Amino acid sequence: MFSHSMKVQIQFGDCDPAGIVYYPNYFRFFDNATAAMLSAAFAMHKRNWLDHFGIAGIPMVDTGARFVKPSSFGDVVEIRSEITEMGRSSFAVKHTLLKDGEMAIEAHEKRVWVVRGADGGIRSAPLPDAVRKLLGAA
Amino acid sequence: MFSHSMKVQIQFGDCDPAGIVYYPNYFRFFDNATAAMLSAAFAMHKRNWLDHFGIAGIPMVDTGARFVKPSSFGDVVEIRSEITEMGRSSFAVKHTLLKDGEMAIEAHEKRVWVVRGADGGIRSAPLPDAVRKLLGAA
Amino acid sequence: MFSHSMKVQIQFGDCDPAGIVYYPNYFRFFDNATAAMLSAAFAMHKRNWLDHFGIAGIPMVDTGARFVKPSSFGDVVEIRSEITEMGRSSFAVKHTLLKDGEMAIEAHEKRVWVVRGADGGIRSAPLPDAVRKLLGAA
Amino acid sequence: MFSHSMKVQIQFGDCDPAGIVYYPNYFRFFDNATAAMLSAAFAMHKRNWLDHFGIAGIPMVDTGARFVKPSSFGDVVEIRSEITEMGRSSFAVKHTLLKDGEMAIEAHEKRVWVVRGADGGIRSAPLPDAVRKLLGAA
Repeated sequence: MFSHSMKVQIQFGDCDPAGIVYYPNYFRFFDNATAAMLSAAFAMHKRNWLDHFGIAGIPMVDTGARFVKPSSFGDVVEIRSEITEMGRSSFAVKHTLLKDGEMAIEAHEKRVWVVRGADGGIRSAPLPDAVRKLLGAA
Repeated sequence: MFSHSMKVQIQFGDCDPAGIVYYPNYFRFFDNATAAMLSAAFAMHKRNWLDHFGIAGIPMVDTGARFVKPSSFGDVVEIRSEITEMGRSSFAVKHTLLKDGEMAIEAHEKRVWVVRGADGGIRSAPLPDAVRKLLGAA
Repeated sequence: MFSHSMKVQIQFGDCDPAGIVYYPNYFRFFDNATAAMLSAAFAMHKRNWLDHFGIAGIPMVDTGARFVKPSSFGDVVEIRSEITEMGRSSFAVKHTLLKDGEMAIEAHEKRVWVVRGADGGIRSAPLPDAVRKLLGAA
Repeated sequence: MFSHSMKVQIQFGDCDPAGIVYYPNYFRFFDNATAAMLSAAFAMHKRNWLDHFGIAGIPMVDTGARFVKPSSFGDVVEIRSEITEMGRSSFAVKHTLLKDGEMAIEAHEKRVWVVRGADGGIRSAPLPDAVRKLLGAA
């Protein structure tokens, strides 16, 4: 299915008193990576594809990460992301963060395709065929 | 004019590899302090007074801080905030952050009272008399 | 085993353009919750128990969360944390975030007890008996 | 004196419920911009020049910003940074953030060149001639 790769340069303020990336920041990087992957798949920026598909967002319902090697200020890491599953109204993503070419973190996430209802609330909606096709492409 | 005090407990993730609070986080604390001060003055939570006064927010137009002493993980600091000036549609705030009772940071900010226009954009609006009275109270 | 509860007040800056907590921030809250739980168990602040036990930290090796209900600016949520497992040199934690008394997020984490070696690097070390006893207490 | 320019892509998580960049995050961007400028001037990464010059850091002693136009998710802004003053052991920086080529924020900062003393504390130290020369170059 669709995959994407991006680089992240670790900044001073991403790191904690132990001198390594404060782990909640990795989830920020992974959120950016998913946005970048879908923007690549849909060939438009996220703020445009939200409008284009008429959705309220792709909220996270489940995520997790396994931390194998720490990264520090000045490291430039690579995040390889791929769609691993498509449900009726949700999809799963796997992120692999590489440092010096070696796996440092493995993360997974499950997100839902949601629209805003007439009452202002959000509810899941089926992945459109166009999305299914673009995300399913190798 | 109106003043308020609150405590902030410095968390591990607020600090950087130098072991002290990463300074952008102080602006987050000061933003929370202004919200808390106005909530105290208006006797309701910010999410309620935004609605109550029909405003879109109180965006920052100018802020600055002078850093005298650093703080670290585990410190409990006090932020004393006060309204220092009220213009037609703006107001100024001064924050003093104290560590162990001594001044550690002095900060100032100027914010604008804004409403949302029919075009979706925001524009400044005069401070209502009720607000002027509540913020002006000693 | 040991458990602890704390309240978190959701701040404006914790939330994203969808108006709900930006999910990486929950991991920041959970990190604070684990620090608070161990500080309660050890009856001293984290910056003191790091020294007291001669460790370099308790780095995260695996964490995940399932998001059931969103929270917004002004919500005061409760995080209930408990030790769920103790290994030779690691321990597991479960966090339940409650909003209005209802489960909103369930999270788990696995952390390692690490000391700094002579080479400056870190390596896992057995949980001391005193720690095992304090964290194992009901 | 020395100047530098970099681009920042505004991410979803940089923005607040008003849909614009949460202003404390701009200080994070400016901190990165100063690090990038000095890295360009010194032709090595910050983590290397800290070692190279034997300093503990360049802590902020005074900063401020004037916010003229907001930026939002998806904007790619430019930060132009320049050294504006060099004191005996401090230097000043001016940042101009441009959105669509127009000035959106003006910020200034004053930082101190510090070394770690034998007691573990930090104290200011004179800017080395080599630094003075590199930062003073047009």
